[in-house]
Amino acid sequence: MEPVLLALVVLLASAQVGGSIGERFGQPAVLGELLAGIALGALPLLGYGGFEYAARNEVLAAIAELGVILLLFEVGLSTRLADLLRVGPSALAVAVVGVAVPMVLGSAAGHLLLPGRSPLVPLFLGATLCATSVGITARVLKDLGQVRSAEGQIILGAAVIDDVLGLLVLAVLVGLVGGREAPLPTLAKVGGKAVAFLALALVVGRWAAPRLFRLASRMHGKGALFTLALVSCFGLAWLAAVAGLAPIVGAFAAGLVLEGVPWDELLPEGDRIEDLFLPLSTATVPLFFVRMGLQVDLRALAGGPVLLAIALIAAAFLGKQACGAAVLQRGVDRLAVGLGMVPRGEVGLIFAGIGMGLKLRGEPLLGSGELAAVVAMVLATTMVTPPLLRWRLTRRG
Amino acid sequence: MEPVLLALVVLLASAQVGGSIGERFGQPAVLGELLAGIALGALPLLGYGGFEYAARNEVLAAIAELGVILLLFEVGLSTRLADLLRVGPSALAVAVVGVAVPMVLGSAAGHLLLPGRSPLVPLFLGATLCATSVGITARVLKDLGQVRSAEGQIILGAAVIDDVLGLLVLAVLVGLVGGREAPLPTLAKVGGKAVAFLALALVVGRWAAPRLFRLASRMHGKGALFTLALVSCFGLAWLAAVAGLAPIVGAFAAGLVLEGVPWDELLPEGDRIEDLFLPLSTATVPLFFVRMGLQVDLRALAGGPVLLAIALIAAAFLGKQACGAAVLQRGVDRLAVGLGMVPRGEVGLIFAGIGMGLKLRGEPLLGSGELAAVVAMVLATTMVTPPLLRWRLTRRG
Repeated sequence: MEPVLLALVVLLASAQVGGSIGERFGQPAVLGELLAGIALGALPLLGYGGFEYAARNEVLAAIAELGVILLLFEVGLSTRLADLLRVGPSALAVAVVGVAVPMVLGSAAGHLLLPGRSPLVPLFLGATLCATSVGITARVLKDLGQVRSAEGQIILGAAVIDDVLGLLVLAVLVGLVGGREAPLPTLAKVGGKAVAFLALALVVGRWAAPRLFRLASRMHGKGALFTLALVSCFGLAWLAAVAGLAPIVGAFAAGLVLEGVPWDELLPEGDRIEDLFLPLSTATVPLFFVRMGLQVDLRALAGGPVLLAIALIAAAFLGKQACGAAVLQRGVDRLAVGLGMVPRGEVGLIFAGIGMGLKLRGEPLLGSGELAAVVAMVLATTMVTPPLLRWRLTRRG
Repeated sequence: MEPVLLALVVLLASAQVGGSIGERFGQPAVLGELLAGIALGALPLLGYGGFEYAARNEVLAAIAELGVILLLFEVGLSTRLADLLRVGPSALAVAVVGVAVPMVLGSAAGHLLLPGRSPLVPLFLGATLCATSVGITARVLKDLGQVRSAEGQIILGAAVIDDVLGLLVLAVLVGLVGGREAPLPTLAKVGGKAVAFLALALVVGRWAAPRLFRLASRMHGKGALFTLALVSCFGLAWLAAVAGLAPIVGAFAAGLVLEGVPWDELLPEGDRIEDLFLPLSTATVPLFFVRMGLQVDLRALAGGPVLLAIALIAAAFLGKQACGAAVLQRGVDRLAVGLGMVPRGEVGLIFAGIGMGLKLRGEPLLGSGELAAVVAMVLATTMVTPPLLRWRLTRRG
């Protein structure tokens, strides 16, 4: 336990200090947490070694992941399903445009800058730009109290659809690299599982949750309600993972399901279920973001192909701005929607990791240079979003 | 993450169901949680395999350990240092008697039942009976709201001293097995580190904590106070581990330190720091106890030496009843103190594990038969305490 306890102390304290400094400078706390993590990760480069294990420690990785799961659960709890369905068509359009345009731009950039490589390489690079990493945006929306704004709802809905589309893109590309087209049945299976999970979770969950929670409340009071909520969150996160989706999508769905529980009747007056989860997320969510910063390998970036990195960053940023144009509703800040879709995170890195593992004529499809460019893209899109989104959303409000 | 999420769901749900059933039968929730864990662990014996990994999963083990750390921190938070010092002499006497008598009884039992073995074997078996595992008792005291009772304070103080004495006993025995007496400097170092940690943590901590928390409150409000409290808890738990003590002793010390912070001035009216920690402990503490049950290996027990197990259980139980006689104060329920000191947990198992790793003339000092007897002793003392202690404390109140 010694290394885990020490790392928790250092990461929680750095996140708090970084977040507070960020807020002093009028920036979102999450930006300060990311920078604190990058600074911690840079210590060995300055000759202060000994803390490198924290970036690889499995226990911390899991607690951080539970943190972002709790974050999306809370965001789901404060989202009204009816509001989300109302923006559904816009969210779908935003997601489709936000997957297609960055993919096309990224592939074109890769095609120009990596001449002579198989056309599958730029396609794969393009795919790393597809999926929005909703954690950053969700955190900014939550901190600004804008989860229920039209922009927030469109972004959250689009991010869920994004995740499904990303799965389909990956299935197609892995099939192409394997020398065959992904057969329609495979695609139908991948997409069908994801859509079935979402539909079942929401329909069955919204029906069952009020009944289950009423029963738990009658039998065992507040502690049991809290445990049942926690179990629902982790349970749907697990089911989402089984269906091939990100666990945070399941946690968001769990939040949407539990939003339909009549908490006013079940909890003592003045208590809100969100407040019960606040200490849990305060203790774990910053760990996720400070660890995200900690994992940035500045050395890997230093030797990377600069032009490719710049091109990917531009494609990633501009590509998602097209999302704004896809919003069907009036009175929505299209720039805010576009900015909210910008951050790419673990999904981009997971795609790049899969690309490095795939072989094309005996060679890895993506090399370490391409990986460095993807890492730079993830870093840039992640860091630029909190201040820009905050600026755009507070300017308006 | 899939296995971690699934295990969290199953363990949290089982703990809740087990705890609720326990309470239905007028038993402490912790007994139900332990039994739920044992039942889960027995599933493979009944042919329902597939969940065995949960007992070994490193992430769950760490989260459960953080749970018991938070539990002792909360217990420390609701303990007044002045009260604890007032019962200090009694706690010291209880600890010394509670280490010496079970050790003598256990060694005598081992001597009788294991003839022909080196006298170090019964001595080591006796040592496994020394240290109280305070988690169970702390949980029962907390659930009954009796942390601040004289009995509760004596038990908690004695458990901390217990931990230091256990370290010294282990140092002596390991020295003896190695064919030499543990030199006094080693003993002084082991004991000195532990005592220095406790003294420094309490003196420096009580001086620094109110200043630090005032500063944090002035700069960043409630969220920063909570994070600083969490960092103090994990930080002192880490320091205790570095000093050779159990992390829970450090967490208890952190609670004692933070009890001296003027929370009324720092938190918004009506908020209590304990309440902020309640969701964290509700989410993690039951995991510790259900996992404790899950780790019971019924098969290992089945083949064990029954007489030795019974003798160790009797020595463990009766030995700690001598503690009651050592209480110096009047008006204290001596039986309740003796019962509160009964549970043995991880410390007994850690000692047994060390004994299995030590070699005496090329043979392991303790064999798997002795281990099974120790496991039976840990199980019996753990299971019997919650109902007996609850009976004794509620009868009185």
